[in-house]
Amino acid sequence: MANAAEAGPAAGQAIPPLAVSIGDPAGVGPEVIAKAWAIRAAHRLPAFFAIGDRRSVEAVWDGPIGLITHPSEAVGLFDRALPLLQVDDPGDIEPGSPNLAGARCALDSVEMAVGLARSGAASGLVTGPVAKSQLYAIGFGHPGQTEFVAERCGVAVENVAMMMVGPDLRTVPITIHRPLAKVAEGLTVDLILSRVRTVVRGLIRDFGIERPRLAVAGLNPHAGEGGTMGREEIDIIWPAIAILRDEGIDVTGPFSPDTMFHAGARAGYDAAICMYHDQALIPLKTLYFDTGVNMTLGLPVLRTAPDHGTAFGIAGKGEANPRAMIAAIALAGLCARAGAAAQVA
Amino acid sequence: MANAAEAGPAAGQAIPPLAVSIGDPAGVGPEVIAKAWAIRAAHRLPAFFAIGDRRSVEAVWDGPIGLITHPSEAVGLFDRALPLLQVDDPGDIEPGSPNLAGARCALDSVEMAVGLARSGAASGLVTGPVAKSQLYAIGFGHPGQTEFVAERCGVAVENVAMMMVGPDLRTVPITIHRPLAKVAEGLTVDLILSRVRTVVRGLIRDFGIERPRLAVAGLNPHAGEGGTMGREEIDIIWPAIAILRDEGIDVTGPFSPDTMFHAGARAGYDAAICMYHDQALIPLKTLYFDTGVNMTLGLPVLRTAPDHGTAFGIAGKGEANPRAMIAAIALAGLCARAGAAAQVA
Repeated sequence: MANAAEAGPAAGQAIPPLAVSIGDPAGVGPEVIAKAWAIRAAHRLPAFFAIGDRRSVEAVWDGPIGLITHPSEAVGLFDRALPLLQVDDPGDIEPGSPNLAGARCALDSVEMAVGLARSGAASGLVTGPVAKSQLYAIGFGHPGQTEFVAERCGVAVENVAMMMVGPDLRTVPITIHRPLAKVAEGLTVDLILSRVRTVVRGLIRDFGIERPRLAVAGLNPHAGEGGTMGREEIDIIWPAIAILRDEGIDVTGPFSPDTMFHAGARAGYDAAICMYHDQALIPLKTLYFDTGVNMTLGLPVLRTAPDHGTAFGIAGKGEANPRAMIAAIALAGLCARAGAAAQVA
Repeated sequence: MANAAEAGPAAGQAIPPLAVSIGDPAGVGPEVIAKAWAIRAAHRLPAFFAIGDRRSVEAVWDGPIGLITHPSEAVGLFDRALPLLQVDDPGDIEPGSPNLAGARCALDSVEMAVGLARSGAASGLVTGPVAKSQLYAIGFGHPGQTEFVAERCGVAVENVAMMMVGPDLRTVPITIHRPLAKVAEGLTVDLILSRVRTVVRGLIRDFGIERPRLAVAGLNPHAGEGGTMGREEIDIIWPAIAILRDEGIDVTGPFSPDTMFHAGARAGYDAAICMYHDQALIPLKTLYFDTGVNMTLGLPVLRTAPDHGTAFGIAGKGEANPRAMIAAIALAGLCARAGAAAQVA
C-alpha cells in the first residue's frame, strides 16, 4: 500500500502547525493530547497546538503548557511546552462530569480549528472527542463533528467521505449511521460515485498516490452469488463501478465482503470501498483497535480524528491511551507534507 | 480462550479415524486431502481416511494410496499410505472440469462419511468442497452440505449452528445465507435462543469448555446507540440474552459489532454470537483467511470443513493450499479427543 511517507517531506519547506481541538474538556481529549505531546519525539510528531481550555489540561496533566495567541507561535514553542490557544473560559470543569459550558468550549475549539485550517495558519485539524448529547443540549444541529466541519467549509455532506485509516488498511463506508435494515435502501449509484470520486481525490492529494487502486465490497454474503442472495451488486454496485471505470478510475469488485481484508488482499488496493458502517469498521478495528484514525475526505482542509469517544468514565484517572490521538496527529502531519509537496511539484 | 487441547487426549483410548469426503472430484478436494496426509506428521494430524474416487486423487498426486474396505483398516495403514474408501467409480474425471458423475461421487462420499460417523466407525467427518450448482443438477434439494448432513442425522436445520473457528476466535452467525436487506426480518428471539443453546452444548461437548462464555454482537452500528440507530437490540437481542442468562448461560452483550474482535476483546469470550453472515465471517477471515474452519454444531456427529470452495480454476495444477483442510482435520481430531475424554470422565 503506497502511503504519504513515500511522497516524502518537502525538504526545507515550512509547514504550519496542526490545530488539535481538545473536544469535550471533561472527556479524555485533554489527557491524550498532552500525553501525545509528551512523547512527540518518539513518534516524530509534527508541531501542533491544542485549542481549548488550559485548566482542563492542567487538571489531568502536570507538564508544561505554553499559551499562544496565534498558530505561528506554536512551532518555536513546541520543543519546550504544549502550545495552547485558549477559547472562552468554560469555568470549572471536572474530568468525567460533562456540562453545558464544556460543550460550548468543545464547539468553540473545533470551530476555531476549522477557521485556522481554512486560513492556512494551521496545516490541518485534528479533532478531539465530543459528546453529542451535550452538544445537542446547546443547540448543535448536526449529527456529529464531521457534518459541522463540512458545513463550516461549505461542502455538502454527500460530497465528503469518512475514511478509516490503519497501518496497512484504509476503508470507506458508503452509508454510515443507518440501522442495518435500512442500509440497502440508502445505497444508490450516485452516492457510490460521489464517495468514490472523493476518495480518489483524497488519496491523490493527501497521500501522494498517483493512481489509487480501489476495491469495492459487495453488500450481500458472497457478493450476492450472482443475484441469488440479493441484487444490489447487479443493480447498483456494478453499474457504479462501470461508470467509474469509464472515468479512468482503477476500481475492482464487487468482491465477497469476507475475502477482502486479509493481508494478501489488503496488499492489492489503496482503499476498500464498503457498503455500510460495520463492513468498514469491523476489519479496521479487528486489526487496529487502538490506532485507527478517522479521516474526512472531500474538505478543503485536512481533518483527522482519533477513533474513540470522550470516555468520561476514565477521564481524569490518567488511564487514557493516547495511541489513537498520536496516530491521528501523525497521519495529519504526513498528509500535510504530501499535500505541500504536491503543491510545490 | 479455552480450547480442546486443554481438555487433553484420553490417554490410551483408541479413537476411530476421521472420515474425510473428497468433495467434488474435479475440485481441489483430492489434492488438499493428499497434501494434508503428506505433511500429517508436522501437523500431528490424527488418523483419517479419504472417501471418494481413487483415480481423482492419483490424477493430482503421486504419493501412496491404500484402498480400504472398512474404517478400522485406516489406522494401521495411515503411517504408510493415504487410506481411501472407494465409492462408485465416476469414470474419467478431469481436474477443473466438473460433471454430473463427479457430483454423484461427491454426494456418495459425504453420505457414506455421515453414515460411518453415525455408526461410530469414524470419529467424525470432514467434508471436502462441493459445487452446489453441480449438485442441484443431479437433483440435490438442500441449500448446501450442512443441511444435507443435518437431514441425514435427523436434526432440523434451526437446531444446528455454523461455527467458524480460528486459532483464537470462534464466531457463529445467527442468520446465514440471507440478503443483507432481509437479515433484520429473519432475526427472532427464538432463533437466537436455539442457536446459542446449540453453541453452548457444542463448546462443552466438543471443546471441553465447562462454562462457555458467549459475547453477543448487536445488529446495528454502535449496537443501535440506545435505539436511535435501529431497535433490534432492544426488541430482540436483549430479550434473548435475558432468557439465556436465566438459564444460567454466561452471555454478555449486545456489543457494538466493531469493538468485539480485536485481540483484547477476543480473550474475553469463547465464542462471538453474530447476527449475520459477514459480521461473523469478516473478522474471522480478516485474521485467519487460510486456516478458518467451518464447524457444524448440534449434530450427533462431529463435522468440520475447510472454509473454501472447489476452486476449479486451480484444480490439478498443484497450487492448492492445504492449510484449511489441515486445520479442519486437526480441529476434528481435537474435538473427537475432547468428546471421548468427556465420555470417559
